[in-house]
Amino acid sequence: MAKITSVSPLAPAAFPDLPVIEGVRFASIAAGVRYQGRTDVMLAHLAPGSTVAGVFTRSATRSAPVLDCQSKIGRSDDAGAAIIVNSGNSNAFTGRHGTASVRAVTRGVAKVLGLPETCVFSSSTGVIGEPMKHERIVAVLGQLKDALDAGAIGDAARAIMTTDTFPKGSSTEVEVDGKTVHIAGIAKGSGMIEPDMGTMLVYIFTDAAVPQPVLQSMVTALNRTTFNCITVDSDTSTSDTLLVAATGASGVAITEHSIGFMEALRRVMLDLAQQVVRDGEGATKLVEISVTGAASDADAHKHAKSIANSPLVKTAIAGEDPNWGRIVMAVGKSGARADRDTLAIWFGDIKVAEGGWVSPDYSEDAAAAYMKGQELIIHVDLGLGGGTARVWTCDLSHGYIDINADYRS
Amino acid sequence: MAKITSVSPLAPAAFPDLPVIEGVRFASIAAGVRYQGRTDVMLAHLAPGSTVAGVFTRSATRSAPVLDCQSKIGRSDDAGAAIIVNSGNSNAFTGRHGTASVRAVTRGVAKVLGLPETCVFSSSTGVIGEPMKHERIVAVLGQLKDALDAGAIGDAARAIMTTDTFPKGSSTEVEVDGKTVHIAGIAKGSGMIEPDMGTMLVYIFTDAAVPQPVLQSMVTALNRTTFNCITVDSDTSTSDTLLVAATGASGVAITEHSIGFMEALRRVMLDLAQQVVRDGEGATKLVEISVTGAASDADAHKHAKSIANSPLVKTAIAGEDPNWGRIVMAVGKSGARADRDTLAIWFGDIKVAEGGWVSPDYSEDAAAAYMKGQELIIHVDLGLGGGTARVWTCDLSHGYIDINADYRS
Repeated sequence: MAKITSVSPLAPAAFPDLPVIEGVRFASIAAGVRYQGRTDVMLAHLAPGSTVAGVFTRSATRSAPVLDCQSKIGRSDDAGAAIIVNSGNSNAFTGRHGTASVRAVTRGVAKVLGLPETCVFSSSTGVIGEPMKHERIVAVLGQLKDALDAGAIGDAARAIMTTDTFPKGSSTEVEVDGKTVHIAGIAKGSGMIEPDMGTMLVYIFTDAAVPQPVLQSMVTALNRTTFNCITVDSDTSTSDTLLVAATGASGVAITEHSIGFMEALRRVMLDLAQQVVRDGEGATKLVEISVTGAASDADAHKHAKSIANSPLVKTAIAGEDPNWGRIVMAVGKSGARADRDTLAIWFGDIKVAEGGWVSPDYSEDAAAAYMKGQELIIHVDLGLGGGTARVWTCDLSHGYIDINADYRS
Repeated sequence: MAKITSVSPLAPAAFPDLPVIEGVRFASIAAGVRYQGRTDVMLAHLAPGSTVAGVFTRSATRSAPVLDCQSKIGRSDDAGAAIIVNSGNSNAFTGRHGTASVRAVTRGVAKVLGLPETCVFSSSTGVIGEPMKHERIVAVLGQLKDALDAGAIGDAARAIMTTDTFPKGSSTEVEVDGKTVHIAGIAKGSGMIEPDMGTMLVYIFTDAAVPQPVLQSMVTALNRTTFNCITVDSDTSTSDTLLVAATGASGVAITEHSIGFMEALRRVMLDLAQQVVRDGEGATKLVEISVTGAASDADAHKHAKSIANSPLVKTAIAGEDPNWGRIVMAVGKSGARADRDTLAIWFGDIKVAEGGWVSPDYSEDAAAAYMKGQELIIHVDLGLGGGTARVWTCDLSHGYIDINADYRS
């Protein structure tokens, strides 16, 4: 395993104070699934009446826990629910043994908490292709139950880390019908962040009362402009999971028209998504790619992703080089509509290219100075229509190679 | 510019002895377009009756010379033809000035050689977005004409290099109707090989007599399984160009049914394509990704490209790590059909995974030993159908970052 111990330079100063979300309690424990001397399993228990929505990796080789979650999500049951997550082993590409592991863990949780098995969701993150020692998780479920605590969400964020360099949390509150609703979430990972330690996992909790179909459609829609708009290395994990749970404990009923709630949920999702990029392998810059003027939103997204995933663009950013020729290249190869002569490019407020060529007032010195910043905005206007997109990425540095070219051990 | 002076460890021992192709003569010169102390312009003159076929980058921001070539290819004229290529400046994203530069150069060549301007093809490779000093090329056209020599193809290969670490050439001969036909070609580049020095350029010559439409359809078809099956970093240049010229000097007439000729042309194209990968930025391994059993050839190609372009797969190869979990990940994310439980993976002859899990006889030690080789084969069988594809790539090493994160200067 790569020995990356220093915290990302892009990490927030401290883990945030997350509010208690009534109706959900957390516990963490060191079960020794793979790691020693640290917590590696977290359990979240959701009170009766809670609803759970989720989105998952679209990988054709997705892991056993993901397949299990997908089969359960959206089934209505008022009994409450639970989420159990382990780090150290992803239980992906583990054949029938993998399915048996998921059953053992979710059945164990259901028994300990008195829930139907269909209300227990699990995730696993860590090495691919090794049988998971699920018995080590099952053995500590009683202790986990006894430790459940409404204030323990921060420890839960730490228990699900693999090679993350910092725990990720975010929260907000919003007034709905004169009452305050709280939202808090945790996340881990950064794409396929480490040798076999892939996986982005996100768990968000709110005390609003949200019917499951409403919550599911909100999460699916918001996912498009938050987690689906980040990329570290274009590699999609077999295990990516986002679960959002609403306990209803605030007594505030949310409908599909609750714009304020949806916007609050979006803020938490976007903050967690950006924290994942801030912990990208070897990242030294957080970069927003903003595309406007595309023929459609879909085209804008294609251009933005093409720029954000280009190894040449990402290495130029690592080198603090305002190399706009590579932006032109990435726009050209994206497959979406572009016209050389209507294309314009900015680094921050510095206009670099327009009218098919470098801008007349372009100052390479000013652009080079801009690139030394830690948070950068690259703006591309296609000059073709009203399509827009924003995508967040990081640079590609020697740190990425250090982490990923190391032999697993 | 990155100071990469050592030759790729994957380079052939020496530049091959290329046969004279009757009907084509070459000249090279140091015009000082950008580089000093080396040749940077090459001219190829094709005798009357020659035919020229070509395929080009599909980038939406392609360069002025590419647009010019595309407008000329396939127009029939028996007057002969010429190809002029400069290194140091790609004349890409240079607005109207770029178009004027192409006109000046191709018009100049036409005048010196007594050809219609529509028979003069040009390519440029080097920095993007800087006006090209085409007058420096025009000034030496007379000298180039005087230097034309049937045996000078090797010098031509050197004149078109940018940051290539070795010149690339390949040839073969084939018996058709009891007579020998010769094919020889040169190439440069490796995707977007260097800061702003992108571009793969390939020129192949034969003394066979091939009607232009036949040559074009052969080249288009063969391109799919040769140059379109290599990738260094997934970044598509604005200037990629492949031109194939047939002089007819051997007197051997080729039709669309000349399988032997087509196979010989394929060998030369594939050899040059693989030489381009051997010169990939920072490459230490040449890797063949062979996919079988896919639902279709198109699906097989998608899987192969997804594996070949995955930064995580490529860094694992650089680290000599038989990290098959990343192959599973890349298959899963490709978007093509896959079934975890019918997937099988080999490193060379070593079966790694099958039936949804690691192979029972898999030896990590044997696989790790295999990965130490310089030329590797990764074979994936989807177990779904008859679709196959082969793609060639290289590893992603610190050398790539060294080359590409360096500030241009």
